[in-house]
Amino acid sequence: MDFDVIIIGSGPGGYVTAIRSAQLGFKTAIVERAELGGICLNWGCIPTKALLRSGDVYEQLGHLGDYGLAIEGRSYDFGKVVERSRKVAAQLNSGVGFLMKKHKIEVVAGTARLEKGSPAPKVVVALNAGGSRTLQAKHVVLATGARARTFPETGLVPDGERVWTYREALVPKAAPKKLIVIGSGAIGIEFASFYRALGSEVTVVEMLPRILPVEDEEVSKAAHKAFEKRGIQFRVPANVKKLSKSKNGVSVEIEAGGKAETLEGDVAIVAVGIVGNVEDLGLEALGVKIERTHVVTDRHGGTGVAGLYAIGDVAGPPWLAHKASHEGVHCIEHIAGLPPSNLTAPIPGCTYSNPQVASVGLTEAQAKEKGLEPKVGRFPFRVNGKAIAMGETEGFVKTVFDGKTGALVGAHMIGAEVTEMIQGFALAMTLEATEAELQATVFPHPTMSEAMHEASLDAYGRVLHI
Amino acid sequence: MDFDVIIIGSGPGGYVTAIRSAQLGFKTAIVERAELGGICLNWGCIPTKALLRSGDVYEQLGHLGDYGLAIEGRSYDFGKVVERSRKVAAQLNSGVGFLMKKHKIEVVAGTARLEKGSPAPKVVVALNAGGSRTLQAKHVVLATGARARTFPETGLVPDGERVWTYREALVPKAAPKKLIVIGSGAIGIEFASFYRALGSEVTVVEMLPRILPVEDEEVSKAAHKAFEKRGIQFRVPANVKKLSKSKNGVSVEIEAGGKAETLEGDVAIVAVGIVGNVEDLGLEALGVKIERTHVVTDRHGGTGVAGLYAIGDVAGPPWLAHKASHEGVHCIEHIAGLPPSNLTAPIPGCTYSNPQVASVGLTEAQAKEKGLEPKVGRFPFRVNGKAIAMGETEGFVKTVFDGKTGALVGAHMIGAEVTEMIQGFALAMTLEATEAELQATVFPHPTMSEAMHEASLDAYGRVLHI
Repeated sequence: MDFDVIIIGSGPGGYVTAIRSAQLGFKTAIVERAELGGICLNWGCIPTKALLRSGDVYEQLGHLGDYGLAIEGRSYDFGKVVERSRKVAAQLNSGVGFLMKKHKIEVVAGTARLEKGSPAPKVVVALNAGGSRTLQAKHVVLATGARARTFPETGLVPDGERVWTYREALVPKAAPKKLIVIGSGAIGIEFASFYRALGSEVTVVEMLPRILPVEDEEVSKAAHKAFEKRGIQFRVPANVKKLSKSKNGVSVEIEAGGKAETLEGDVAIVAVGIVGNVEDLGLEALGVKIERTHVVTDRHGGTGVAGLYAIGDVAGPPWLAHKASHEGVHCIEHIAGLPPSNLTAPIPGCTYSNPQVASVGLTEAQAKEKGLEPKVGRFPFRVNGKAIAMGETEGFVKTVFDGKTGALVGAHMIGAEVTEMIQGFALAMTLEATEAELQATVFPHPTMSEAMHEASLDAYGRVLHI
Repeated sequence: MDFDVIIIGSGPGGYVTAIRSAQLGFKTAIVERAELGGICLNWGCIPTKALLRSGDVYEQLGHLGDYGLAIEGRSYDFGKVVERSRKVAAQLNSGVGFLMKKHKIEVVAGTARLEKGSPAPKVVVALNAGGSRTLQAKHVVLATGARARTFPETGLVPDGERVWTYREALVPKAAPKKLIVIGSGAIGIEFASFYRALGSEVTVVEMLPRILPVEDEEVSKAAHKAFEKRGIQFRVPANVKKLSKSKNGVSVEIEAGGKAETLEGDVAIVAVGIVGNVEDLGLEALGVKIERTHVVTDRHGGTGVAGLYAIGDVAGPPWLAHKASHEGVHCIEHIAGLPPSNLTAPIPGCTYSNPQVASVGLTEAQAKEKGLEPKVGRFPFRVNGKAIAMGETEGFVKTVFDGKTGALVGAHMIGAEVTEMIQGFALAMTLEATEAELQATVFPHPTMSEAMHEASLDAYGRVLHI
């Protein structure tokens, strides 16, 4: 037996699972074909946050008079903005390398393929350095992640020049003058927000009836309005009929409300969803069940094939790094025979646009669909003292409680720094907090987080500041 | 009977109590001798946050190269910075006026004095407009707040010119070139941070062995280091022997480690504590018990005198607006016969300096004093992905758990935006969360709040990213 546990893929799901595996005393290896840290660290969550930070600060330079401050001119060096984001990614990537060493996790650089084995499938690695290695472990955890979905029939395929996915959008040579973003999920909206901050003309096309379609309808509406105020244009709902490259850029033929329109831009970003990385792994031969490009798993990550587990993006939505690492930790603790820590933990979601969006649990509509007779509270930042003092009055907090039990079942936020605040509601839901407990909690004054308290009071007719 | 409830003082403790009183169906009046909203809204929490925001943004303009950005020159208009903070205060002040009207709470502008009455003391108001009004209510709630402590014997008395309290420090004509801040609690440190951001030479003198002395020792140490890096100087511990005015400013004679030193500055800010506003209220004649300038109360705010309650700063530390409003809501609900909502709610504390400081519950030392055998976890922001992407790697999160029960008993944070994050720990403590529950909660990635999760894991040897 070469290892107790082999993990395939080193994104946050994979490498966190590896660390926990080592902590639990397992002899652990991790196979990675590209950069340690996977898409998230190298081409996703992390470098985008670095870009967005530069964009947010640059945008703020446009209204310093609000704070009694003045500058003589502002400029950005696009090369340096991108370089900084690459450095941030590189730092975290090397951090994962350090963590693997520290925990004595063997990193195998290569592309894995599974073959029949016992007590788990064999892992055959085509090494990046040449040659191959066949490894046998007691347990194999698939954490191969996902990639951008493409639609060849309508031309939605990245070419690295005019048509970008998140990957190309992270490292262009210059900011496009006219940008078309196809898809208004978190990824599309974050790029729209970043490039708009740097002055690009941005149009976002969304097929569904509203932007950020997984968010609560009121949040979608407020986000739409806030982004429009920043000059982002929308075509919602609109179908993309054809994306074609033209001499100086791209043409996107869309249809909205029965009317055809052609959008012209320098560049289009395709952010229309995700497909799981399930190919060329030998999964079919092992009899692993795959549905809609994702491995089907039980609640512990088991695939039904002895010794083979799957976690994170490859095991299905939500495609979020923290969902992946949470699943991974649970999976490896299950393998170690530990009791399940928290199988029903709510998974918060964040969009780091300007304004930011964050949510956890059910939307109001979902609560109604579940027959919950929700009690709903709202509180706008425009009457929150800290928000006024900060000059960050956009947005609101919305809470959704189960009308019968008083349990918090969902929370939705839009505004400054809400991505750092949502953890309070995630904690509350994990601890099965009721409205009475949230109302009896002392939130510090003056903070924007007081709006979380007020929204909880508002749901029960006890709001203080409106 | 003129009213069911009369509240004396309209700071957050007072006006929130008034709103809750009205919500509960009580005919309510509020007596205020100065501005609605009290010190907090007009001369404290709120306008300081507005100043600090201008200072923070201005300071950021000094290192825009970090983000790939450039400006040609930066300047501030001190008059406009102050004017903005006054506008923010005025907006909230008028907001309280609106809330009083909305809830049909009568605002009596004048200075209250109590006389024997039944079933509660009579409230005699010397009206600001002239004349007086005597009001009888069933219940009277004292929310008269507190003010800066002064020490005439050593010259620590504001003169409005060279010696300031928070009040003068909020509205000077110009930023001092050389500023001496006496006292390193939240108020002193916030002004030190603000004026340093605008370029003042700042020296902070603290009598106790460390700055921010109510915070956990590790936080004090890190804050000291961070502020020194920004150029703030400290004399800690040091006793102020004499503050005297000189031709161009102030001289502060101090003694530190047996050595005498004289500090020279344009201006000194005195922030050496708080005394309760208990004078001229007729409390002695009623037999109200006062200790160290504060009204002694039972756990419901009762003073021992029939119908008379006290809440907030006047009822003792911690002198925090959210403690006052929490006590007030509890007090009025108790008067209404409702069951106590949460008598043991932990009260978080925040300092809005750069970096920010926030905490809730016991420090490590306090936990040990209580015999708790604490389990302590730490996580530094310098290895947190979001913090690196934001360029905000200063600071850390520290968690303190009861080693026997696993209950979270304290949490301490220093770094960017920690004042908005601490609510998660306040919620966790209110919900009596254990380490297992915190560990099983999914914190969104990438956020600085993940450091809260990691610090909880670290306390039990399970940290992931160090």
